[in-house]
Amino acid sequence: MMSSTCIEALSTEGRRDFYNSFDTVLTDCDGVLWLLNNTIKGATEVMNGFKADNKKVFFVTNNSTKSHTQFLEKFHALGFKALANEVVSTSFLAAKYLKANLDPSKQVYVVGSPAIACELDALNIRHFGVGEDYLKTSVPTFVENIKLEPDVGAVLVGFDEHLSYPKLFRAASYLKDQNVLFVATNTDESFPVAGTGLVMPGTGSLVCAVKTCAGREPFVVGKPSSYICNVLTETNKIDPSRTLMIGDRCNTDILLGKRCGFKTLLVLTGVNSLKDVEEWSKSDDPKLLELVPDYYAQSIDSLRATFPVPL
Amino acid sequence: MMSSTCIEALSTEGRRDFYNSFDTVLTDCDGVLWLLNNTIKGATEVMNGFKADNKKVFFVTNNSTKSHTQFLEKFHALGFKALANEVVSTSFLAAKYLKANLDPSKQVYVVGSPAIACELDALNIRHFGVGEDYLKTSVPTFVENIKLEPDVGAVLVGFDEHLSYPKLFRAASYLKDQNVLFVATNTDESFPVAGTGLVMPGTGSLVCAVKTCAGREPFVVGKPSSYICNVLTETNKIDPSRTLMIGDRCNTDILLGKRCGFKTLLVLTGVNSLKDVEEWSKSDDPKLLELVPDYYAQSIDSLRATFPVPL
Repeated sequence: MMSSTCIEALSTEGRRDFYNSFDTVLTDCDGVLWLLNNTIKGATEVMNGFKADNKKVFFVTNNSTKSHTQFLEKFHALGFKALANEVVSTSFLAAKYLKANLDPSKQVYVVGSPAIACELDALNIRHFGVGEDYLKTSVPTFVENIKLEPDVGAVLVGFDEHLSYPKLFRAASYLKDQNVLFVATNTDESFPVAGTGLVMPGTGSLVCAVKTCAGREPFVVGKPSSYICNVLTETNKIDPSRTLMIGDRCNTDILLGKRCGFKTLLVLTGVNSLKDVEEWSKSDDPKLLELVPDYYAQSIDSLRATFPVPL
Repeated sequence: MMSSTCIEALSTEGRRDFYNSFDTVLTDCDGVLWLLNNTIKGATEVMNGFKADNKKVFFVTNNSTKSHTQFLEKFHALGFKALANEVVSTSFLAAKYLKANLDPSKQVYVVGSPAIACELDALNIRHFGVGEDYLKTSVPTFVENIKLEPDVGAVLVGFDEHLSYPKLFRAASYLKDQNVLFVATNTDESFPVAGTGLVMPGTGSLVCAVKTCAGREPFVVGKPSSYICNVLTETNKIDPSRTLMIGDRCNTDILLGKRCGFKTLLVLTGVNSLKDVEEWSKSDDPKLLELVPDYYAQSIDSLRATFPVPL
C-alpha cells in the first residue's frame, strides 16, 4: 500500500525539509491557482513567494483555448508575476512539436480554437480548419462535394467548441494517409462545472471521437505526456529529483510528475479527492498506484506555512 | 491456427451440405446486399431464393438513420421480398430496449437521427434532442444559461449528422446521474467511402466522444451485442446451430454470429478483406481469433451455386 503525506500534518522540521527539497516548481493552473476567473486563496502569495525565493517556476496547463499572450494577460490580471517563458500551454507545445516534425511545405488541418491558430501563426506554420464547419446539406451531398486539401501533413486536435460531423469527416480522411501526423493537445476527459450537475466535455472527448474514426492514436503534447519535460529541459536546467509538480488531477498532473521523476503534490481544490487517492493506494494495479501523489494538501494555501518565514 | 472455408472451393457435395446446414439466415445489409443504393449482384436472387425454400430470413443492420418503414421501402425498391418482421435495425432495437427498461414517466435525450425519433414515437416513448443544436454563444455563456430537463431517464446515442459540443455537454450532464440509462445503437467506427480517399465517421466515433466525457459505458443494442438475438428469439423459433450469419464486417457481423453460436460467413464486398482474416487466424489472441469466420465468399452471389437448383 502506497501512502501520501499530508502537508498540513508535517512538523516544523518536516515543513522545512519539504520546502528545501525542491528548487523548481511546475504547477497546473485550473483547479490549483484558480477556478474559472477566481483566484484560489493564497495562490498568488505562494507562487510569487517561490519566485522571490529564487525557485524556478513554470505554469503548465492542458488548456488549449488561450494563446500564450492571453494566458500571460490572465496571470497578470490575477496577480501572478509570470514571465512569458514560464507559461507552457498545450497550444504552444503543439505548435512547437509541429515546427520540429512537420515537413515545412505542408499545412495542418486543425480541429481546435483560435488560440491554436495564433500559436501556429507565431511559428509560421500554415493551417486551416479553425472556426465553424457545420453540415449544411445532407451527408451524401456533403460526401459527394467534399474537397480535401492536397498538402496536409498533420491533423491537430484541441478543444473545439465548433466540433461537427464535417470536422470529424475531414480529420479521419486526412489521417487515412499514414504519413500525416496526428497530434492532440491533451486528453482530459471532462471538467466538472463547480456546484452544478453539469459536466463539461474536455478535449479528450473530441480526441476520442477522431481517433475512433481514424483508427489511429495521436501524439499527445499535454500532461501526462512527458513531451513537456523535453521542451522545458531544452532551455532550462532542471534537476527532476529537486522538482515539485503541483496539480489537482492525478491522471494528468501527478502522472506527468511520476513519469518525469518529480515530487508530486495533489491539491484538493479541483478534480480529484482524497477518497480517490485512498482507493488507488489500496489497489494492486500499478496503473492506479502511479496516480498516488507523494503529498497532498487541502489547497495551495497550505504551502504558505512551509516557507522559511510563513507568508 | 483457425481457418475459414472458401465457399467457391466447395465440392458439389460440400455445397449441398452447406446449404442444408442452416434453416435460418441473418444477413447484414450495407456491404453484403448493397453499396449505398446499388444492389450487389445476386443479392436479391439469393435472399429471395432462401425465402422461397422456406428458410427464415432476417435483415439485420446497425444503421440507425432509417426508420423501420424507410428500410422496408428500400428493400422493396431494390427487389428484396422482405416483410416488416424480418427487418431489424438499431433504431428499432433501441426503442424496444427503452420500452422494456425505461421508467414510463421519464423521457429520452437523443443524440441521433429523425429515424430514431420515429421509432421512439411508434412505442410512445417521450424524447427530445433530435435536430440541430449548435453553439450560438461562447461556451461560458452556454454553460451559464443551459437548462437541463428534469425528467430524463435515458440518453440514447446513434448516428447524428448534427453532432455538436452542446449535444456532448447535455449528454454528459444527464449521464452524471447514474440512474439515467445510457444506450447506444452501435459502435461501428467508420465506413470507407468506396473508391475515394475518404473516411466516413460511424456512430462508434460519436459514442466514444460521449462515453469519454460521461465516464460511462453504454448498453449497445446493435451487432455484435447479442441483444438482437434475445429480441429475435422472443418471437421466433431459432436454432442457433442451424443459423447462418452473413456479413462484411468481422467485429460486428461475424462476432455477433460467434457470440450467438451461429455459423458465420464473410463476404468480401465490404469492410474486411481476406488478408485481415488470414492475419487474425495466425494470431494467438483469442479476441482476434473470434473474428475469423467459418466461411468466406467473394460475394453473396457465390451462394447461388449452393442452392439445390443453382439460381
